[in-house]
Amino acid sequence: MNGGTKAGTIYGVGLGPGQPDLMSVRADRLIRGAQDVAFFRKPGRQGHARKTVQGMLPESAVEFAMEYPVTTEIPLSDPRYNALLAQFYSDCTAHLKSLSDKGRDVVVLCEGDPFFYGSFMHLYTRLKDFAPVQVVPGITGMSGAWTATGIPVTWGDDVLCVLAGTLPEDDLARRMGDADALVVMKIGRNIDKVRRALRRAGLYDRAWLVEYACMANQSVTRLADTGDGVAPYFSIIIVHGQGRRP
Amino acid sequence: MNGGTKAGTIYGVGLGPGQPDLMSVRADRLIRGAQDVAFFRKPGRQGHARKTVQGMLPESAVEFAMEYPVTTEIPLSDPRYNALLAQFYSDCTAHLKSLSDKGRDVVVLCEGDPFFYGSFMHLYTRLKDFAPVQVVPGITGMSGAWTATGIPVTWGDDVLCVLAGTLPEDDLARRMGDADALVVMKIGRNIDKVRRALRRAGLYDRAWLVEYACMANQSVTRLADTGDGVAPYFSIIIVHGQGRRP
Repeated sequence: MNGGTKAGTIYGVGLGPGQPDLMSVRADRLIRGAQDVAFFRKPGRQGHARKTVQGMLPESAVEFAMEYPVTTEIPLSDPRYNALLAQFYSDCTAHLKSLSDKGRDVVVLCEGDPFFYGSFMHLYTRLKDFAPVQVVPGITGMSGAWTATGIPVTWGDDVLCVLAGTLPEDDLARRMGDADALVVMKIGRNIDKVRRALRRAGLYDRAWLVEYACMANQSVTRLADTGDGVAPYFSIIIVHGQGRRP
Repeated sequence: MNGGTKAGTIYGVGLGPGQPDLMSVRADRLIRGAQDVAFFRKPGRQGHARKTVQGMLPESAVEFAMEYPVTTEIPLSDPRYNALLAQFYSDCTAHLKSLSDKGRDVVVLCEGDPFFYGSFMHLYTRLKDFAPVQVVPGITGMSGAWTATGIPVTWGDDVLCVLAGTLPEDDLARRMGDADALVVMKIGRNIDKVRRALRRAGLYDRAWLVEYACMANQSVTRLADTGDGVAPYFSIIIVHGQGRRP
């Protein structure tokens, strides 16, 4: 802290699934009044989070793009991956803390819900004991996806299981077979493995692939009707529950 | 349809976890412009959904309270339960359809997210082929709950499992033991069974009880620090994942 200046608050703001009017009223208010705005993106891209708030930021807002040093070029299992990312999150944290120390409020744009598989969590755990941090929950990408299918996802006592496509195939197949309703995230290059696991679990014909849920280029297809290949990053697979319904 | 009148749209609008500024911008706009507003409640109560929009409805809005004929007085296993509820949902559907036929738009207030364990789903499936229906996703109650704990819920490849406290104890314990991160909903009178299942799964000391997340009377406690007895309807148990974090 810098003398008598009151520390600014760092807000982790959930943007929801992508359409601007699906963010919360609180998020909308914070973004339209933002002094400093920070967001993650891949180098050379505008970034989905930043794109979602296009036209909402005040002209005076100062932008801080946090560019991932690595995404899929180094495998997760390589120790360099963790080291690079840890350094990156530390650097981002230091910058956000310096803004807070100067008394500036910072809005960190978070796709979906900040506490649900979000990069902001890595900043949050590093910041929370040293600066005022507030989290604004958001509509998750999976809510956007199941809404896009036009079919309710969980009924009565249905068990919902949320899986990452990065898990081993055997693990995926076993857990899929044990769930009533299913969400699979992080599809991308794991799509063929996820297909095999769904077949083994007997769920392939009930699975839907939702790409870019609630965005302009949204696509909703039965998985069985899609071709092979790499699914975009913003794709989610949904298998709807079939529980009790009067 | 009534002659040349254009059918009105029935909107299932997610209100989110309970604070008015945590509903989406789209939900806020629809509610403030509502012609007809429908909501579920227990007989003799104002109803949480209706309470959440207090002060937002236009004076001209026509309200339609849909009062559950039965909640916990008859066990779920009793065939009369299903018959009573089926009749109730049919009656509600008929009324909403008649408003749509007259060209009126109807906003149905839904706590949380409409397609995630919501009563609106029972209207939706009966209406969707006979009237224009649109669903506005919302922040789930569980997002509100994990945000309230101040701890991120899922990291890396964590598997999230969402369970209903109404399930048998053995089933709860087994599934709890197999999850990385855990949400237990529908606690209420199942709280003691849920406690036993969490103990059997070795998760009791990591469990948080969140009551009335994001409402004025919110309470967040480690489950181990709470007393025995019935938890309120709006309570959710969270066990946070401990997955990969650089």
